[in-house]
Amino acid sequence: MLQLTFLGTSAGVPTKQRNVTALAIECLNPYLSGSNQQQSKKSRPWLLIDCGEGTQQQLLHTKLSLHQLTAICITHVHGDHCYGLPGLLASAAMSGRTAPLILIAPKAISKLLDAVILATELHLPFAIDFMAIEDLLYQPNNENKGQVSISLDKQQQLAIDIHPLSHRVPSYGFGITQTISRRTLNTDKLLAAGIPASKVWGRLQQGEDVITEDGKQLRAADYVDNDEQRTRVVVAGDNDMPSLLASALQDTDLLVHEATYTNEVLTKIQAKNPDFDPMHSSAQRVGKFAQDMSLPNLILTHFSARYQRFDNPDSTTPNMAHIRLDAKSVYHGNLWLAADFAQYRVDGAVEVVEGQADSRVQYVGSARDSK
Amino acid sequence: MLQLTFLGTSAGVPTKQRNVTALAIECLNPYLSGSNQQQSKKSRPWLLIDCGEGTQQQLLHTKLSLHQLTAICITHVHGDHCYGLPGLLASAAMSGRTAPLILIAPKAISKLLDAVILATELHLPFAIDFMAIEDLLYQPNNENKGQVSISLDKQQQLAIDIHPLSHRVPSYGFGITQTISRRTLNTDKLLAAGIPASKVWGRLQQGEDVITEDGKQLRAADYVDNDEQRTRVVVAGDNDMPSLLASALQDTDLLVHEATYTNEVLTKIQAKNPDFDPMHSSAQRVGKFAQDMSLPNLILTHFSARYQRFDNPDSTTPNMAHIRLDAKSVYHGNLWLAADFAQYRVDGAVEVVEGQADSRVQYVGSARDSK
Repeated sequence: MLQLTFLGTSAGVPTKQRNVTALAIECLNPYLSGSNQQQSKKSRPWLLIDCGEGTQQQLLHTKLSLHQLTAICITHVHGDHCYGLPGLLASAAMSGRTAPLILIAPKAISKLLDAVILATELHLPFAIDFMAIEDLLYQPNNENKGQVSISLDKQQQLAIDIHPLSHRVPSYGFGITQTISRRTLNTDKLLAAGIPASKVWGRLQQGEDVITEDGKQLRAADYVDNDEQRTRVVVAGDNDMPSLLASALQDTDLLVHEATYTNEVLTKIQAKNPDFDPMHSSAQRVGKFAQDMSLPNLILTHFSARYQRFDNPDSTTPNMAHIRLDAKSVYHGNLWLAADFAQYRVDGAVEVVEGQADSRVQYVGSARDSK
Repeated sequence: MLQLTFLGTSAGVPTKQRNVTALAIECLNPYLSGSNQQQSKKSRPWLLIDCGEGTQQQLLHTKLSLHQLTAICITHVHGDHCYGLPGLLASAAMSGRTAPLILIAPKAISKLLDAVILATELHLPFAIDFMAIEDLLYQPNNENKGQVSISLDKQQQLAIDIHPLSHRVPSYGFGITQTISRRTLNTDKLLAAGIPASKVWGRLQQGEDVITEDGKQLRAADYVDNDEQRTRVVVAGDNDMPSLLASALQDTDLLVHEATYTNEVLTKIQAKNPDFDPMHSSAQRVGKFAQDMSLPNLILTHFSARYQRFDNPDSTTPNMAHIRLDAKSVYHGNLWLAADFAQYRVDGAVEVVEGQADSRVQYVGSARDSK
C-alpha cells in the first residue's frame, strides 16, 4: 500500500494556497505483525518526488519525518521542482540524520548541490547516494536500464523505473512499484499431515524448518505459500506528451500527471506567442491519454497559478471546475485534482484518506475530491 | 521613515510558527505630495535583508511586491539566510520584472547564483547589479569603504554601510540610513520682501528661480530652507560579538540583532561541546551591549527552534519569556522580540504597527510586543 501526500501542487510559482511541486509517497506494509507493525506506523519509509522551495516547511505540518526519508527523485531541473533540496538536506543534517539518502535526479542536480555545499559551507553528516538519471537510462551494458531497486524491510521491495518525457528541459516520469511478500501457512495441509496448531506453526510461517518432538522433519517451503501484493503508481514530471508513458502504465493503479492548463488556455498561450511553447499538458490531453489506456485512476496536479482553488463551472475566473471539466470531457475513470496536503491511499483501488495531512486545518472534502 | 516587516525569525531551521531569516525594510517618504504620495503608497521601494528558504512564500501574505524590491543584502552564506534567493529571483522573473536589482552579498553568493542559473536553466529578464561585500570593504583606493548609496526618488537617498561581524563564516551587519530632503518655503521672508502668496511661491518651493511680473529676480535658494529627515537602523547578521557594531550604532534609532539563545542555554551548549562553538549571541549579551551604547530601541530575532512562541516565565519549556527576561536583566531601553509578520515603523522613535503584515490572520499583540 502506498500513501501519497501532495506537498505542493502549483506550477512555476507558489500561490497563497498552493506551494510549488513536491509529492511524498509512504510505503506502508500492512502485513508487518506485532511490534513490527507499531514500528511501521511510526517510522515507515517514504519517497519524495520533486522538492520545490518550501517543501521542508510543508513537511512541518505533516507527520512525515526527514529521518525516514529513503529516497528523493527529481523529475527535472526547473527551479519549482528542486529549489527546496538544499534547505531540506540542511534541515535533515541539523536534525541529526546520519543514514545515507538516495537521490535519483538529472546530473545537473549533482553539480548544483556541489556548488551549494561549497558556497554555503554546508556540512552533511550523511552520505548522498546520487544516481544520475542519464547514467541509469543510457549507460551501455546496463541490463536493467532505468531501474533502481530498494529493499525497505524483509518483506517489502521497492522498484523505481524511469521514463523520458517531453519538456523544455529533459524531464522524466517515475514508475514506483511496491512489492510485499506475504507468507501464508497452509493449515489444511498441516492438519492433513497430522500436525495440530502449536508453536510449530508459527516457526514454519517465519520460514524455519522444524523437527517436531516426535521426530518429524517439516520443511517450511512445504507448508507455506508465498503471496505477493503489488502496488504501482506512475508520477510524471512536466510533460507535453503523455503518450510517452504508454508502456510505463502497464498494470498501474494510478497516474499522477501535470495538467497546467485547460485545453482552451493552452491553445491560446501557444497562439499568442508562437516562439515560446511552455511544453505543458492540458487536463484534456492527459485525460484523453488516460482514457485510451483504460487507466482506472488519475490525479492531476501542477496547476497554473491562474486557477483558483474553488470549484465553480459558471465562474469566468479560472478555477478547478474548468480543469475538472476539461479532463472529464474525455476521461471516464476516477479523477482527482490534487490540493496541498491532500492524501490518497493506493492499494489496487485509490482511496481518499479521511482527514488531510495538514495538521493546521480541518478536512474540507469538496475542493479536493472532484470525482 | 522605514517600515520593517519580519518575514522569518527562526535560527537554522524553520518551525511551524517561524520561517528562516528574512527582513523587509520599506522606505516611506511621507513628504511626497499629491499624486506622488498616492504612487508612493502603492509602490514604495524596499530592501530585503537575507532571504532564507520560503521568503517568497511569506511575501505572498504581505502587500510587498517583487516589482518594487530595490536591493537584497545577504549577511552571510549560511543556508538559512540565502536558500530562498534562487526561487525569489525566478518568481520575480515570472512576474515580468525587468528593472535591475542590486544584490549586496559575500562573493560566494555570486558563485552560487551562477551555478543555479547554469544547472537549472534559469533565465532572468532583469540585470543583477552584484556588489561583493569583500570588494566594497577591502578594495584599495576606495574612499567610501563599505558604503553603497542609492537614490530612491528626488527627495530620498538611501545609504548602506557594511560592518564585519564575528561568526563561523564571514558575517556582516548593514547600517541603513534613509535621508529625506524637504524644502520648506520661508513665508515670513517672502512676505517681508513684499511677495504675496501666489503661484510664484510654489515655483520657488520646487527650486525654480523666478522673475516676477514686475521684474523682481527671486532666487529659490534665498527663500527655501532645506530640512533633512534622517532615519537609521542597523541590522546584524549572525554574530557573537555585538561590540563590533559600536561605531555603526552612532546616531542609530534601532538595532536588529540575533539572540539565538538565553545566556544560560548558550553557556550549556558551549560547555557540552568545547570543540564546536555556534558563535551566536545570547539575548543578555546583546542587551548588555545595547545598554552600554545607550541604544534607545532594540529588536531581537533569530531564535533557536527550541523557544516556543508563547510567553510564560514560569514554564520549564523554553519560550519567549526566557529570552525577554535574559535581555531585560541588563537592558532598559525599548525591547521587542520579533515574530513572523510583525511590523515596526522607525522614525526617530519606533512604533509597532497596529495590525500585522500577514493577510491571513488577525493581529495578536501580546506575543509580539514584549516591552
